[in-house]
Amino acid sequence: MLASADMGKSWNSVAIVGVGLIGGSIGLALRERKLADQIIGIGRRTNSLEKACALGCVTEITTNLAEGVLEAQLAVVCTPVERIALHVAEIAAHCPPDCLITDAGSTKGQIVASVPAKARFVGSHPIAGSEKSGPEAACADLFNDRVVVVTPTAYSDPAAVSAIESFWQSLGARIVRMTPDEHDAALALTSHLPHLVASALAMTTPESVLPLTGPGWQDTTRVASGDAELWRQIFLANQVHTLKALDDFATVLERFRAALKSGDGTLLAALLAEGKRRRDALGS
Amino acid sequence: MLASADMGKSWNSVAIVGVGLIGGSIGLALRERKLADQIIGIGRRTNSLEKACALGCVTEITTNLAEGVLEAQLAVVCTPVERIALHVAEIAAHCPPDCLITDAGSTKGQIVASVPAKARFVGSHPIAGSEKSGPEAACADLFNDRVVVVTPTAYSDPAAVSAIESFWQSLGARIVRMTPDEHDAALALTSHLPHLVASALAMTTPESVLPLTGPGWQDTTRVASGDAELWRQIFLANQVHTLKALDDFATVLERFRAALKSGDGTLLAALLAEGKRRRDALGS
Repeated sequence: MLASADMGKSWNSVAIVGVGLIGGSIGLALRERKLADQIIGIGRRTNSLEKACALGCVTEITTNLAEGVLEAQLAVVCTPVERIALHVAEIAAHCPPDCLITDAGSTKGQIVASVPAKARFVGSHPIAGSEKSGPEAACADLFNDRVVVVTPTAYSDPAAVSAIESFWQSLGARIVRMTPDEHDAALALTSHLPHLVASALAMTTPESVLPLTGPGWQDTTRVASGDAELWRQIFLANQVHTLKALDDFATVLERFRAALKSGDGTLLAALLAEGKRRRDALGS
Repeated sequence: MLASADMGKSWNSVAIVGVGLIGGSIGLALRERKLADQIIGIGRRTNSLEKACALGCVTEITTNLAEGVLEAQLAVVCTPVERIALHVAEIAAHCPPDCLITDAGSTKGQIVASVPAKARFVGSHPIAGSEKSGPEAACADLFNDRVVVVTPTAYSDPAAVSAIESFWQSLGARIVRMTPDEHDAALALTSHLPHLVASALAMTTPESVLPLTGPGWQDTTRVASGDAELWRQIFLANQVHTLKALDDFATVLERFRAALKSGDGTLLAALLAEGKRRRDALGS
């Protein structure tokens, strides 16, 4: 812990826009690692901000974004993906000229293309989280040993990219650098497709048989409990890649179906073994 | 624990054929609840039986099924589904005339139709387990508060049905009584379809993007780590119902795809909300 804290740059003032699970966890991690003197939580609902403050996620709160970022050296936007570019623009209009800006959105292409502050904004996506939401679900080690994808572009200031990567590393994360489009193509497969499939699977299960579900169904459908509105935004922001991932999935599923329909046990076992091999490659 | 032990009938001799995760857990539960004096583990591989014995799952072991069931009052068959009917027949040929027989197979229709001892055999399916296997993964509370489906038929001796239900209850389980076909139709939706989907999802994920998977992918694909051969048998034994469940799933998935493709955010949000409602109905 001390080693990590030593590694990280200290900030006088960090602004977090949107203090839910991700924003709240960033605040908690910064405080626990003593990386920031002032952490300003910015949001629309006083009620939610007060909760985040009471939980120790932030040191100050405001519903006024312009005021909240006035002295920020770093601003992290943790709002739903459809709002991120707008919030980056608002921050850029009011923060000090050397303030770095990043986000935590689950999609990157549309956001990175839309932000105005192209030199100082570096897109990020911490691959951490859960089906839970709100500052109540925040925890200081959410990013510990997790991957954060950082998506610089040709417009990005290399010093800003480096500083944003150091920021996430100081919270315990490992950095993977990709282009926004590479990110969206990969996450369509590793996150957006699984969510769509889990949601469809939950919906396919009639309520009458829910008492006959076991740990397998529970695991396989767990992410379907995620916030529907947040996920609507993610799917629409990554429409093309998600549709492509769905096509890939449909092709594989059709191979399973054909093997089952023809009663080809050898083929079915081979497909199951390949799925197992892929899953086991990751570990539990 | 004492209350449960008081509830359960005590057995002088219980034979468990196949001492893996399920068989081993039955043995551990019987011992911890002091419900059986003698628990005979029966299997093909001495190595595996010795491990089960060392772990305390059984009190005695043998590779000779005929000898192992000679004095059994209860025999529980926990072998892969394609072997169960055969093992029931072997047990029936060698056990005392009043010995009760049940199984723990994930499918019921084919098994129940094939067994010879139709009065004394009552099919069961404990909806418990994990992607792990072997006696090392066994635990005494695996059935605690879990559902066990019991599938009597017109041939079943009512006293045998009642005794088998009491047996599972004495291990902490809740009983749901269904016909074998009702069971197979329901489990196709709650277990076999999720497994097929998880396996296809794992296979759809190129290894190059595995480092970008998070908790969501891990949960959604977890069951794909299950034993490929065991699952091949389950799918083939429940072919018709699983294909029907796959059709249901494909229909729902097509609704998601159409909403995404047309960019209909309202419809997409409604579908996601319905998936969430179904998932939340169960709890975590």
